[in-house]
Amino acid sequence: MLTVSNQALNLPVSAIRRLIPYADAAKRRGIKVYHLNMGQPDVDSSKQALDAVIQNKLSVISYTNSAGDLELRKGMVKYYASIGIDVDEDCINVTHGGSEALQIAIAATCDPEDELIVFEPFYTNYNTFAVQNDVILKPITTHIEDGFKLPEMSEIEKHITKKTKGILFCNPNNPTGCLYSREEIAKIGEIAKKYELFIYSDEVYREFCYTDTPHYSAMHLKGLDDNIILLDSVSKRYSLCGARIGFVVSKNKEVMKYVLRYAQARLCVSTYGQIASIGAIDTPKEYFDNVKKEYINRRNVLLEELSKIDGVFCPTPNGAFYAAAELPVDDAEKFAIWMLNEFNLDGKTVQVTPMAGFYASPGMGKKQVRLAYVIKEEDIREACKCLKAGLEAYPGRI
Amino acid sequence: MLTVSNQALNLPVSAIRRLIPYADAAKRRGIKVYHLNMGQPDVDSSKQALDAVIQNKLSVISYTNSAGDLELRKGMVKYYASIGIDVDEDCINVTHGGSEALQIAIAATCDPEDELIVFEPFYTNYNTFAVQNDVILKPITTHIEDGFKLPEMSEIEKHITKKTKGILFCNPNNPTGCLYSREEIAKIGEIAKKYELFIYSDEVYREFCYTDTPHYSAMHLKGLDDNIILLDSVSKRYSLCGARIGFVVSKNKEVMKYVLRYAQARLCVSTYGQIASIGAIDTPKEYFDNVKKEYINRRNVLLEELSKIDGVFCPTPNGAFYAAAELPVDDAEKFAIWMLNEFNLDGKTVQVTPMAGFYASPGMGKKQVRLAYVIKEEDIREACKCLKAGLEAYPGRI
Repeated sequence: MLTVSNQALNLPVSAIRRLIPYADAAKRRGIKVYHLNMGQPDVDSSKQALDAVIQNKLSVISYTNSAGDLELRKGMVKYYASIGIDVDEDCINVTHGGSEALQIAIAATCDPEDELIVFEPFYTNYNTFAVQNDVILKPITTHIEDGFKLPEMSEIEKHITKKTKGILFCNPNNPTGCLYSREEIAKIGEIAKKYELFIYSDEVYREFCYTDTPHYSAMHLKGLDDNIILLDSVSKRYSLCGARIGFVVSKNKEVMKYVLRYAQARLCVSTYGQIASIGAIDTPKEYFDNVKKEYINRRNVLLEELSKIDGVFCPTPNGAFYAAAELPVDDAEKFAIWMLNEFNLDGKTVQVTPMAGFYASPGMGKKQVRLAYVIKEEDIREACKCLKAGLEAYPGRI
Repeated sequence: MLTVSNQALNLPVSAIRRLIPYADAAKRRGIKVYHLNMGQPDVDSSKQALDAVIQNKLSVISYTNSAGDLELRKGMVKYYASIGIDVDEDCINVTHGGSEALQIAIAATCDPEDELIVFEPFYTNYNTFAVQNDVILKPITTHIEDGFKLPEMSEIEKHITKKTKGILFCNPNNPTGCLYSREEIAKIGEIAKKYELFIYSDEVYREFCYTDTPHYSAMHLKGLDDNIILLDSVSKRYSLCGARIGFVVSKNKEVMKYVLRYAQARLCVSTYGQIASIGAIDTPKEYFDNVKKEYINRRNVLLEELSKIDGVFCPTPNGAFYAAAELPVDDAEKFAIWMLNEFNLDGKTVQVTPMAGFYASPGMGKKQVRLAYVIKEEDIREACKCLKAGLEAYPGRI
């Protein structure tokens, strides 16, 4: 039978994807759409990365090591050392972006029906990777009212069963922008130790922290070498989303042995992406300082503008480049579509991401939207004006 | 429990991988190792591909379309038209190399326990992708005596069950170098039509055909638009193995819809790889003419040198850059290891790939090796001298 697989039929389509046709249609009608929906930074890529590629002298673009180019892995060892993470090159496997890092980490450690604890709202593709591996996500809800803080230890423990394989989370968080404290990470560590669980720590936004406290990585936890699997990427750090270079990092030798076996099956990752990433390691501190300054300003502008809109609640995000806001609407997805289909303010509108799809529990997050402050200050102000006018005109306002 | 998954434990390790430590040890002892083991061409990459990357002016390496860059897909439409394959850009999804093309094609179409008919010997990673998708490979043996021709229709039909989802094969073939005729492909088409099976046609070596007849693609078959899934790659064609750009190509709209969904889960493929591939489409005919001339010469040299060795049987390969040879030995893997561990001719030896791992049926191919003629003529001659002397000295000679 020429039918697609059940797994294929079960792969979720994210709300971000569902909205694309509406945005495209709006653009065809001549409407300017401000994109607060996408996690694609507009900041320039690290010049060192771009230059490394342009200056390469290779005459054959050949297969490289399945674990990743040794020079890149050695460079990453130094990078990690610089942020207090002590690993050697055998603890690192280069992957096709952070996406494949997580795909392989789950495949290498989880059997069908195994459970992963996640804190909802969470990055929607966690759902997809779970479906791909027949793994069940066990969501614990975090709440916009307290800025999406991690739940109490006792609450997490209630969700642990014999099938629980680990705890998967993103810090700083996509979609909430929440930055977890050292104490919160330590709590996860305690539970992981007590119940022999893996910690899958997605830290691709590590450089985007806006408090005075440095980012606390799961890899900083002591005595949990066999538990922690770090998922990382150059995409956001150096604005190299299209390089498709990520990393699985763990001191668990058995895990890394099998991660490599998955990596061998697909031979290797992009040679050019690795060249860019090797170059990127020399990115000067000023690059990050400037990027951080820019994002802090954008975030502040976004919060300032949102505060002018009646009925909108948005806790201050301290990391990544996302804010999660609750809107005075019946249904954020309906509202988002309406903004693209039926609304414009002087020929302009805004695209936001409805957050229900970031929850696994039905009915949650129905009034929430994710706002990515990856566009320039003036555009954020304009986008918020549209949002304000849209909310005033929206028939489903509550 | 901090254990790896059963799937991870079941992932096969190819003989190619198993031999690497022996080759490395030989090199450390100062032995020169001729590599007839790897499918990595030594020919220069297409200059148009290399130049496109070096001349790119991008300042942000951003995410691209999950289906692949539109310019690349349009370029591929023209390329396919030039070889008599009529598809549009919606029939093409760009992937992380041919490896991901096959991974996604299987995932999108096969449920656990579904069966794929393969002709052994076959590319070993078919095994890996089958394990990753809980799919069962049903091997039909092809034979070195008749140059690994495809089996009779009746023989193939015997292997079809209610669980059979399709037929997976590589043409020209890795590891045998066999080039299937139009008649053989038509036979597969007939069976696919009769039993409603997918044809997964891996044609990554399409440009490496050494007869006067042009390559006959499964996509040339008529009336089978919904059955055929083409797996393709720029890796071998333009010597861009490290670009990691492949393609799933099908006119089956439902299949392509779900292929895209898998592609969306991992966001996009390498921007640089796509830039190289767009450039590569303009590679002039002379490039292929020269590469083909070079490989035909290498193949002829290899056959000539092998013919000087008593007890070696090697049918003439008409495609790809592999030859499968039967050696007068007890066990080709033992012999391959012995050649690296215990033998050298004036400080030189040769690494070959034992072929048992290319068969799914136990005990098959035990005396066979795959020889990749991807090294220069003189090196092939030297390698064959080592092989001859090795076979004369090998204690397990039969």
